[in-house]
Amino acid sequence: MSEKIAVICIGDELLKGAVVNTNLSSIGVRLLALGVVPVSSVEVPDRREDILAALEFSLARADIVITSGGLGPTADDVTKEYIAERCGMRLEEDGAAALNIMKHWKMRHPSEEIPPRVFNQALVPHGAKILQNDCGTAPGLIVRTPETDEYPNRTIIMLPGPPNELCPMMDASVVPFLKKTLKHFTFTREFHVAGLGENIVEERMLPVIARFHSMLSVAYCATAQFVRLFLTTESPEVMESAIQSVQELFAVELLSDDADSLSHEILHLLGERDETLALAESCTGGLAAKLLTDIPGSSAVFAGGVVTYSDASKTSLLGVPADVLRKHGAVSKETARAMVDGLANAIPSDAAIALTGIAGPGGATVGKPVGLVYAGIRYRDKTEVFELRLRRTREQIRERAVAGAFFRLRAMILAAENEA
Amino acid sequence: MSEKIAVICIGDELLKGAVVNTNLSSIGVRLLALGVVPVSSVEVPDRREDILAALEFSLARADIVITSGGLGPTADDVTKEYIAERCGMRLEEDGAAALNIMKHWKMRHPSEEIPPRVFNQALVPHGAKILQNDCGTAPGLIVRTPETDEYPNRTIIMLPGPPNELCPMMDASVVPFLKKTLKHFTFTREFHVAGLGENIVEERMLPVIARFHSMLSVAYCATAQFVRLFLTTESPEVMESAIQSVQELFAVELLSDDADSLSHEILHLLGERDETLALAESCTGGLAAKLLTDIPGSSAVFAGGVVTYSDASKTSLLGVPADVLRKHGAVSKETARAMVDGLANAIPSDAAIALTGIAGPGGATVGKPVGLVYAGIRYRDKTEVFELRLRRTREQIRERAVAGAFFRLRAMILAAENEA
Repeated sequence: MSEKIAVICIGDELLKGAVVNTNLSSIGVRLLALGVVPVSSVEVPDRREDILAALEFSLARADIVITSGGLGPTADDVTKEYIAERCGMRLEEDGAAALNIMKHWKMRHPSEEIPPRVFNQALVPHGAKILQNDCGTAPGLIVRTPETDEYPNRTIIMLPGPPNELCPMMDASVVPFLKKTLKHFTFTREFHVAGLGENIVEERMLPVIARFHSMLSVAYCATAQFVRLFLTTESPEVMESAIQSVQELFAVELLSDDADSLSHEILHLLGERDETLALAESCTGGLAAKLLTDIPGSSAVFAGGVVTYSDASKTSLLGVPADVLRKHGAVSKETARAMVDGLANAIPSDAAIALTGIAGPGGATVGKPVGLVYAGIRYRDKTEVFELRLRRTREQIRERAVAGAFFRLRAMILAAENEA
Repeated sequence: MSEKIAVICIGDELLKGAVVNTNLSSIGVRLLALGVVPVSSVEVPDRREDILAALEFSLARADIVITSGGLGPTADDVTKEYIAERCGMRLEEDGAAALNIMKHWKMRHPSEEIPPRVFNQALVPHGAKILQNDCGTAPGLIVRTPETDEYPNRTIIMLPGPPNELCPMMDASVVPFLKKTLKHFTFTREFHVAGLGENIVEERMLPVIARFHSMLSVAYCATAQFVRLFLTTESPEVMESAIQSVQELFAVELLSDDADSLSHEILHLLGERDETLALAESCTGGLAAKLLTDIPGSSAVFAGGVVTYSDASKTSLLGVPADVLRKHGAVSKETARAMVDGLANAIPSDAAIALTGIAGPGGATVGKPVGLVYAGIRYRDKTEVFELRLRRTREQIRERAVAGAFFRLRAMILAAENEA
């Protein structure tokens, strides 16, 4: 039987609804990659009685408890104090943690004195293992409950609450620690499969799962742009063979190992070819451009975009002939083709994507349902128009339209390479 | 002392990290509007032992327990079964719920037979109050623990897991139910304050809070575009007087009552004047256009946009003179002015916004730090350029740049009206 893990997320703001708890899913997806699903998560405010109650609940159910939040310098940061109290440990100053705090403070506030309360973050439970915080001042902490405890020898891992500190610490310290602790999940591998639904990915994997049976654990997690596919196993031979199977099964759909999004992959593929991309967006209304420019440095590839949400702007910015719009409608193969052709004049580039469709909830007509999207895509001297039929909410239709267009542009880039 | 509320969110997907738990924040912010912060939330998988453990934990801590998830038709939807078991109630079919299920099924699958398992959703604990589901098939349920229970007379409110079913049910049924149950929070009011940080809103409210002391509860929740400000009180006189204070304190910053975002407010203000808006985005890279087009029907107002992320596209699409870019740089008052002026030719409109800035993490130069943004804004015959100095992450800087520009355009629209 594998060890059980429970999560506790501490902070008033989680319960007030001010903040959506992304830490739980950040922790959850990293544990899933190790083949573990937490048995529970509890959110509690920064109050002694609530933190202690959440601890009892979690220690009773799990061998390892991961907490987030309450390690900062202010009066309501009380996590480690109460956990130390619960485990009968005293707090003492850690020299290395104090140095790291000074370093970070000087970087952010070069001309200000450090307030004494900031050094509270260097106080750690006696005997704790300290996890360095590369993105902030509060160190992470690992302690064990004493032999004499009602729940003896449990591991408690305390992480800072800000997601931009918690995630890097999970990756740099906690995942390696758990890989050592959870002995049967030594080998892990993550793949990103684009262009296919989660159910199709699952179906294609069935023979692989059947072949390795209990020696291989497979998990899935669908995002807007692709399906994350996780393999975990104790055996290096099984892992090697499973990786080969996945690479064969999803030859076209597997993204590069370091691409964490399709937009990233597109920027990478075009960037290494010194090529540029232009966008013309109707139904997606700027979403494709937003996703590209989420990535720092995207200006080297992204030549520019136009958002032609209205018919008039399709004509004025892209030169789409008024009679194409009249005859075939704004949502048509013909308009998508005219948009991507017109884009070549408006913004010269090596690659171009034009999107027009019905994101809903209104706008459907006979034969043109909500979710119908046409993507006109040009790469070098080749232009193609794709029809996408998407479902669900306005937001999801827009996300999937962008993902679909990026995926097809990627295929055209790879095809051009194979032909050359 | 007011009643305590605890939350339980049920579903494997929450713990696998596949889904971020937005239900907790959706519930939390609605309770905050009633002046209540939940004492805890627990996420557990769809398993009997875990659901029962979460129930004991929550019933021990709260008078009212709200659950989400596990009310659907599949084998892993087990919430009401175990709660009925815990409370010693038998399940029985509810006729109205069965009718609603038939109605929804016919609407979504006009030509398919209803599988018998779908009717499992019409089975309800004996004596339960039934909350109609206007957006799906599973009804919500309210039960009370028996007199003889270890935790007698507690209220358990069960809601469906899909956010698009849970949120409308919270608004239509649960909030009214709680308003009756939580007697001292009869009067509530929500305001949206734009253009000010949460700390400034809090500071300005201090005299109001001091004046009404314990008779008025005030809560805040900052979003990317504005601060949500909640008032709750038992007294209609206090509420009336507090509303007047808020309206005086934030005369400029209060959004229209029905605007749930600044983009919504901009579309509303321009729409009722039959006017149009054009966008030129550099550092925000399509985000402003995306936020406008998130809203169905925005095409009536949104004339179109250009994303000029590179210098070359600023010149080719907007006619920004190359020597303005050379002399003052892409991030400058002068470039913002040239962008908004050029936009008038590219996309004729009544209002126009041009944004250029440094979203980071790279790109800072001497005197031009990350977070420096210029917004050129034109409304009718008036053009102004604003300097914004924003902080935090790339994502937050981009969000705040858009919010800042929308807020200033709104001020120009309102000022023009006052002059007229």
